[in-house]
Amino acid sequence: MKRTKLCELLGIEHPIILGAMGGISTGKLAASVSNAGALGSVATAFISIEEARREIQECKRFTNKPFAVNCPLFRPDVNEMLDIIIEEGVSIISTSAGSPDRWAEKIKGLGAKWLHVVSNVRGAVRAAATGVDVVIAEGTESGGIASRDEVTTMVLIPQVVDAVKVPVVAAGGIADARGFLAALALGAQGVQIGTAFLTTKECDRISDTYKQVLLNASDTATGLATRKAYPVRIIKNKLFDTLQHLDEEGKSREEIQMMLAPKMINLSQENDPENGLYVTGQVAGLIHEIKTVKELIEGIVTESEKLYHSLAG
Amino acid sequence: MKRTKLCELLGIEHPIILGAMGGISTGKLAASVSNAGALGSVATAFISIEEARREIQECKRFTNKPFAVNCPLFRPDVNEMLDIIIEEGVSIISTSAGSPDRWAEKIKGLGAKWLHVVSNVRGAVRAAATGVDVVIAEGTESGGIASRDEVTTMVLIPQVVDAVKVPVVAAGGIADARGFLAALALGAQGVQIGTAFLTTKECDRISDTYKQVLLNASDTATGLATRKAYPVRIIKNKLFDTLQHLDEEGKSREEIQMMLAPKMINLSQENDPENGLYVTGQVAGLIHEIKTVKELIEGIVTESEKLYHSLAG
Repeated sequence: MKRTKLCELLGIEHPIILGAMGGISTGKLAASVSNAGALGSVATAFISIEEARREIQECKRFTNKPFAVNCPLFRPDVNEMLDIIIEEGVSIISTSAGSPDRWAEKIKGLGAKWLHVVSNVRGAVRAAATGVDVVIAEGTESGGIASRDEVTTMVLIPQVVDAVKVPVVAAGGIADARGFLAALALGAQGVQIGTAFLTTKECDRISDTYKQVLLNASDTATGLATRKAYPVRIIKNKLFDTLQHLDEEGKSREEIQMMLAPKMINLSQENDPENGLYVTGQVAGLIHEIKTVKELIEGIVTESEKLYHSLAG
Repeated sequence: MKRTKLCELLGIEHPIILGAMGGISTGKLAASVSNAGALGSVATAFISIEEARREIQECKRFTNKPFAVNCPLFRPDVNEMLDIIIEEGVSIISTSAGSPDRWAEKIKGLGAKWLHVVSNVRGAVRAAATGVDVVIAEGTESGGIASRDEVTTMVLIPQVVDAVKVPVVAAGGIADARGFLAALALGAQGVQIGTAFLTTKECDRISDTYKQVLLNASDTATGLATRKAYPVRIIKNKLFDTLQHLDEEGKSREEIQMMLAPKMINLSQENDPENGLYVTGQVAGLIHEIKTVKELIEGIVTESEKLYHSLAG
């Protein structure tokens, strides 16, 4: 496939971005992705500013290629986090989980490239008007904290592409060459992948049990838990059922968050398939083996070339 | 694009199938689709055996190309319906909304090509083992009566393709050349389209208001109503809210069905955007103009050729 606009804009070889998964997308994992020619993202959700600085420094130690740092906009200390990101010389910032407007002046002044995650057309239009350089449009099949919009990737991407002039990256439901090529056909200039990186060899912040749960997952293995209070896509097991009951009982967003937060930052401790928290995208059912980051990325790129040619007459 | 296996198997020019929408996919609409080189489907949900016979005869009057007749397997009179379909010389039968096993011996004995709709991998594997010739895999973005699985098209198609040897058709979220090409990239041999045919000029069983509601729809305009009792994808309006309340109150599947059935068979009477029943796929947000059936089909085919070439380096 041709190098897309995203490659040119971010100075990367392959238009694939590591999803900034809280507690999982470490500096080291992000560096592995960047070293393989894609774009690593360092996650900063659930960690302090100083921990974030250490992850960024770790990323720089392992790669000299471009990488992004994600700042979720629900943080109370967004301002300080942005300062740290720039102090550390990071040239690509991604934001998510909030409205970009408030931070536009600051981020635009920093001179970095700015990626922002949205889940609907309105959010995309607002982000583009705010001045982001890239819109990451995330379908409901994505793992983890979810949008109430529940628009699927297939439906969302072409509409976002029609609505904004900046490059659009497709997220949600993409784990192999087929999803990658489909995303480009829908008009995306690249893809963001989370779940498929969860099951790479280099992902060391989840337990072996966790990886096995993902490898065993079927197409129908995930669900959106606590839809009323705090929608989050996880594996359906006993914990999922418990969460559903709490949601039906009318537990608040804060109560659900308080229950999940300690688990979210300790995913390496999940060793019980039935009672553990297994955050994952719906696409887990498509993943059957542990690969290295390099094998995953190069496999997607190489196989999508072959697939492309096989579609011709 | 090359002619796919689906084209060869069914004797059609373009690998596009009209979704069998109850009360909407009439013999005449199906004939328009077949005449444009795709595969029309005559719906038989909500109508009697004799009405179905008239629709099939109407279809034959308007086309001499192949078309399918759909038999939903929740009908109490499946046996008689299958007899009528064959008596009328129909060579392609599609089944949906039920388990195909019970009807395998009869349908295989009829000598027709057999298409069956599924919403998950397990259903696809069972259908293929039962002897269907084509699996139509329908993602959660589809309109109307929905599966509880809520697997999206992007995630479902490659997994179904990996699980069965027969050709797979992608349904749900496809309305233009981008969705068509994306479906082929995911491994489908064709697509089934409902919503985009709802807004064609030839679709005469819904009101002008209904068409306008679809043209005005945004990406987030639809939702799955009555998820507990009887999931159905429709436009979110006051009726949607009412249905949600009834579902929360614990109304049964039968009660919800009794409430919706008279509306389902009178969609041409819906003239109030806020209180009407507007059954549609999530992809309505991508549709902005009324086209003829021929314009829609030829547009998808022609534009997907251009799009395909634009993806190359």
